[in-house]
Amino acid sequence: MLNIGVIGCGYWGPNLIRNFSNLKTSKVISCADLSEDRLKHMKQLYPALRTTTNFREIVTDAGIDAVVIATPVSSHYAVASEALEAGKHVFVEKPLAQSVDEGTKLVEIAKRKGRVLMVGHTFVYTAAVNKIKDLIWGGEIGDVYYMATSRVNLGIFQDDINVVWDLAPHDVSIMNYVLNARPVSVSAIGQSYIRPGIEDVAFLLLRYPQSTIANIHVSWLNPNKIRSTTVVGSKQMLVYDDVSSLEKIRIYDKGVTVTPHYDTFGEFQLSYRYGDISIPRLDDAEPLKIECQHFVDCIEKGATPRSGGTHGLEVLLALDAADRSMREHGKEVTIEYPAIMDSVR
Amino acid sequence: MLNIGVIGCGYWGPNLIRNFSNLKTSKVISCADLSEDRLKHMKQLYPALRTTTNFREIVTDAGIDAVVIATPVSSHYAVASEALEAGKHVFVEKPLAQSVDEGTKLVEIAKRKGRVLMVGHTFVYTAAVNKIKDLIWGGEIGDVYYMATSRVNLGIFQDDINVVWDLAPHDVSIMNYVLNARPVSVSAIGQSYIRPGIEDVAFLLLRYPQSTIANIHVSWLNPNKIRSTTVVGSKQMLVYDDVSSLEKIRIYDKGVTVTPHYDTFGEFQLSYRYGDISIPRLDDAEPLKIECQHFVDCIEKGATPRSGGTHGLEVLLALDAADRSMREHGKEVTIEYPAIMDSVR
Amino acid sequence: MLNIGVIGCGYWGPNLIRNFSNLKTSKVISCADLSEDRLKHMKQLYPALRTTTNFREIVTDAGIDAVVIATPVSSHYAVASEALEAGKHVFVEKPLAQSVDEGTKLVEIAKRKGRVLMVGHTFVYTAAVNKIKDLIWGGEIGDVYYMATSRVNLGIFQDDINVVWDLAPHDVSIMNYVLNARPVSVSAIGQSYIRPGIEDVAFLLLRYPQSTIANIHVSWLNPNKIRSTTVVGSKQMLVYDDVSSLEKIRIYDKGVTVTPHYDTFGEFQLSYRYGDISIPRLDDAEPLKIECQHFVDCIEKGATPRSGGTHGLEVLLALDAADRSMREHGKEVTIEYPAIMDSVR
Amino acid sequence: MLNIGVIGCGYWGPNLIRNFSNLKTSKVISCADLSEDRLKHMKQLYPALRTTTNFREIVTDAGIDAVVIATPVSSHYAVASEALEAGKHVFVEKPLAQSVDEGTKLVEIAKRKGRVLMVGHTFVYTAAVNKIKDLIWGGEIGDVYYMATSRVNLGIFQDDINVVWDLAPHDVSIMNYVLNARPVSVSAIGQSYIRPGIEDVAFLLLRYPQSTIANIHVSWLNPNKIRSTTVVGSKQMLVYDDVSSLEKIRIYDKGVTVTPHYDTFGEFQLSYRYGDISIPRLDDAEPLKIECQHFVDCIEKGATPRSGGTHGLEVLLALDAADRSMREHGKEVTIEYPAIMDSVR
Repeated sequence: MLNIGVIGCGYWGPNLIRNFSNLKTSKVISCADLSEDRLKHMKQLYPALRTTTNFREIVTDAGIDAVVIATPVSSHYAVASEALEAGKHVFVEKPLAQSVDEGTKLVEIAKRKGRVLMVGHTFVYTAAVNKIKDLIWGGEIGDVYYMATSRVNLGIFQDDINVVWDLAPHDVSIMNYVLNARPVSVSAIGQSYIRPGIEDVAFLLLRYPQSTIANIHVSWLNPNKIRSTTVVGSKQMLVYDDVSSLEKIRIYDKGVTVTPHYDTFGEFQLSYRYGDISIPRLDDAEPLKIECQHFVDCIEKGATPRSGGTHGLEVLLALDAADRSMREHGKEVTIEYPAIMDSVR
Repeated sequence: MLNIGVIGCGYWGPNLIRNFSNLKTSKVISCADLSEDRLKHMKQLYPALRTTTNFREIVTDAGIDAVVIATPVSSHYAVASEALEAGKHVFVEKPLAQSVDEGTKLVEIAKRKGRVLMVGHTFVYTAAVNKIKDLIWGGEIGDVYYMATSRVNLGIFQDDINVVWDLAPHDVSIMNYVLNARPVSVSAIGQSYIRPGIEDVAFLLLRYPQSTIANIHVSWLNPNKIRSTTVVGSKQMLVYDDVSSLEKIRIYDKGVTVTPHYDTFGEFQLSYRYGDISIPRLDDAEPLKIECQHFVDCIEKGATPRSGGTHGLEVLLALDAADRSMREHGKEVTIEYPAIMDSVR
Repeated sequence: MLNIGVIGCGYWGPNLIRNFSNLKTSKVISCADLSEDRLKHMKQLYPALRTTTNFREIVTDAGIDAVVIATPVSSHYAVASEALEAGKHVFVEKPLAQSVDEGTKLVEIAKRKGRVLMVGHTFVYTAAVNKIKDLIWGGEIGDVYYMATSRVNLGIFQDDINVVWDLAPHDVSIMNYVLNARPVSVSAIGQSYIRPGIEDVAFLLLRYPQSTIANIHVSWLNPNKIRSTTVVGSKQMLVYDDVSSLEKIRIYDKGVTVTPHYDTFGEFQLSYRYGDISIPRLDDAEPLKIECQHFVDCIEKGATPRSGGTHGLEVLLALDAADRSMREHGKEVTIEYPAIMDSVR
Repeated sequence: MLNIGVIGCGYWGPNLIRNFSNLKTSKVISCADLSEDRLKHMKQLYPALRTTTNFREIVTDAGIDAVVIATPVSSHYAVASEALEAGKHVFVEKPLAQSVDEGTKLVEIAKRKGRVLMVGHTFVYTAAVNKIKDLIWGGEIGDVYYMATSRVNLGIFQDDINVVWDLAPHDVSIMNYVLNARPVSVSAIGQSYIRPGIEDVAFLLLRYPQSTIANIHVSWLNPNKIRSTTVVGSKQMLVYDDVSSLEKIRIYDKGVTVTPHYDTFGEFQLSYRYGDISIPRLDDAEPLKIECQHFVDCIEKGATPRSGGTHGLEVLLALDAADRSMREHGKEVTIEYPAIMDSVR
């Protein structure tokens, strides 16, 4: 039985408390928040829960094995680094930190202390994303030529981060996970329509190894909510529509086959097939429950998390590169992965 | 009654012959094609039609007032310039020509000879596109912040032009028309997945005067056919879905309003409204019929065509700028409009 | 502050406890269930709640003003009649009772005791159904010719009631409410495919006063879940799609207008208009919350509930008539409304 | 090469002339119509075509092998019977005739004269309907429990026939064809909303042998155009949506399985599976072309048409039974099939 302390009981924290409480292999011992009201509310729901306004009481509690952090992103580094240094395993909500530097340090501390560091990139625990990964690595898709995502809606405008940092973490996390790769470079163009200096529409182009390329379209300025991911391969294509409740993945048995040789004067021959469509059934388990169980399992069995610190850091590196490319009007920015990452993945 | 000769009876020519034949104010006298088979077929459908394999017989025919050109784009300049020089009015299928130079010359010749030069950008004759223009200029949309189009499908791959030249002419034509403006600059990123050197996916960012910005996403690599145009304004938004047969335009009475003043320390205030949706009824007249009638009317009444030579040349300039930007990985390319264009629009 | 006791803490009861607890004008004092486990669970969520396995403790509690009943339908009559006789106001989940006789008696007792009897027909508290009623009574629809509903899905087969009793109560409740009328007769045809004697597909035809007619299609044998209600009027039509999350109601500005006079030899003239579509914005308040507040308001202000005992009894009468018609293969069955109902509505 | 004469050049006739003209195995020699204008128009399109206002010139023309009839239904019997008696093969548009009596006589004459009589029930030549038949008879669906169709739209109101005769012929034809059976009885309820005595909404229940039952919902009073056919079997279900252009058939790998034995006191056990969905690719050949080729093939090879006289007569018998059932408010009407039909199918 793993004893857990939760820091931050605002928007997302209660979901984490609920899930870790319901697992058979973990127990939430105490929680912290700056607001007495939130603590009172949590106490009402879980009478046995200890509460505190001082997060250090949790970090230093010898009876606690793991700390779950759901505070604002600006405090992720301070809280997570203390917890790791105190020898706790750490689960931190996404994004891992507010800069590449902070994220790198967290990965380093976790490595040095030999503790699990996991980031709450929930999509990699969904049935849909894992189905896509299975299809790619099972060979059904063939070589992946191209991925494209649209994550657009009429935005909840953020006052401190742009649309790339708000929405694209999901896409980078999904892409890196299903391709089992990390982008070599990023080009991005963005535009601020509503607030000067805060991009609300952006297009990213990520180059992965072996000629796979991916596009990300994020926007706070679209009256339709779209959450679609397209994967185009040499054998099949698929579209993942996260807005659909029952038909999230459609696999198109049609594709484009390039004939290997054709002479200078010949017509370009293109084999175009159009075929059946299939919509696989997906499990409807709650991804957050799977994610929480995974964190516990990684601690108890010493496994590497799907969305560990390096995964979270990869996402920060891509977002940072996108920001720099946008500042230079789309110039391709090569990502340099810190040496610490090579020793982990 | 306007006497018309049609050059090119392949894929699109017969549609033009049919429409100009059915108008009460025009008559198709003769047609030309290199294929005897095509000419025989046209003769069967229209027994009174004269046919020839030599397009110069039409260009030099004193009984013909206007020449309609539906030949491959590589011959547009040669045929259209001869026809204009011979004093004919000219309707040429889109794109106007295969380069900015050729297009510029055609505009110059038409001006010098005082003849109508019109390009077959059919979308500007559709009920949907004109409804959008009416909504913008009637004030319902408010200030236009942003336009975005997606024109993607599993492509009929072209062996000589990239996806930008294949699909984006429609979007540039629509945008310039509804905004009544032309882009100042273009940034574009594209990628060749299937054939080296021929982009099959591209994203364009066009900057128009007065801070209006537009995105164009074109792709030959998408299993879903999408034809959508989004217009986001300060008052309302709309989505034009050309794939839908009955509900092409949806107007969203919701938007984002920026409060004009807010102090340094204040929270960014965003007024977010979400309201009714309306789907206006649209006329279902055949756009090509309207286009053909418009050509005849412009000749007879001396009016300027909606999709005249300068409109066609604007499109070429934007496509050319996109190509150059893609070669430089997204660098912003400023469009220089030839002086000749200022004297017309 | 109204003191409430809830009897039945199974599937639906906790929702009612939550809503009545959250209202500012009511308080849940105690709850009853036969299962100790359920009581323990409720106690954990609401530590101040008194619990009992004997519902009579609630019915006879002098400190309780109103009793909310969410037990299986077979016990509705027994529990509700005791509570009314004890002078409590009663909210009972739909359907009111398992027979017309039982339902009639409950209405009689409530009248005799001067207490509020309300049935949980939640749809009449939804924004969509009230929008439809407003459109009809505001004149936008014109004369209502026709209503038709489809309520079909792959069924949770019931072992004691047929598809008409399972699904049609919603439709009858909605129709009676928006038309402000009750059906004169019912014809129904049904069929048992899976279990002998238990209809799993049925079509009902209800005749209302003034030539308005309504169809109900219910099925447990449809792979698509459909929840649609169509209203066809002399001026406009509307379709209410309850499966859609954001676009529940579509109003079609097209209709069929019968010319009032045409002579014997003349052609039948039909004026067919096809026009704009509009999708009104609807409030997204939780209907159950509105329903609970309404119950409290009716008690405190002496108002008649929208879904009072007579409304619930009307539904039972229509279901009973449908059953009888199905037994006679579709014969029209006239509904006789008990005299007690005339004194209330 | 089969020589064909076409009688009736109105709405549908030109489509038949075009298709029979384009086949390699047939030639249209002449056509008849009461309108000189229509004949002139056909002559313009097909200069070699002979035309006449007297249909008997075609019926008695020794050079003509087969007569195609696309006149109003009231004249089907008169024209078709003369043609058959004159020894011609006959293709007649649906419905075969305006009464069961007339239809029966046509079947008898065709049999006596040994000529092909085929009815234009085009749906049985579509890829979708044949896919459904293949799925049923290939065993994928299992036992067919239930079919249901909705064929509703805002109607082109007819002045002489009701909605059952206008729309239900398609459904009966499809059902009889895919089930390879004919209904034993029909119950129907209908209602006249717009014109007294002419039903514009109707529900039919058809009982087929072996417990298969089918519902048909037809309406001229629905603002949405729906063309759906659902087939529920013991193994799989499918929905055929004819309004969809690319995804007409969806096969649901979920179903309801009844456990073969369960004791009196046991709970009813229902095995509910929910699984994958597949959308098979369908050929997009023009059904009318296949239908015309089939007519020619039947004549030349002596085969029995898919939609021969008996198929057309079966449809008339079902429509007639539906009319009689509606007159008696839904009473079940048993269909008596004429003895002549047993000798053919």
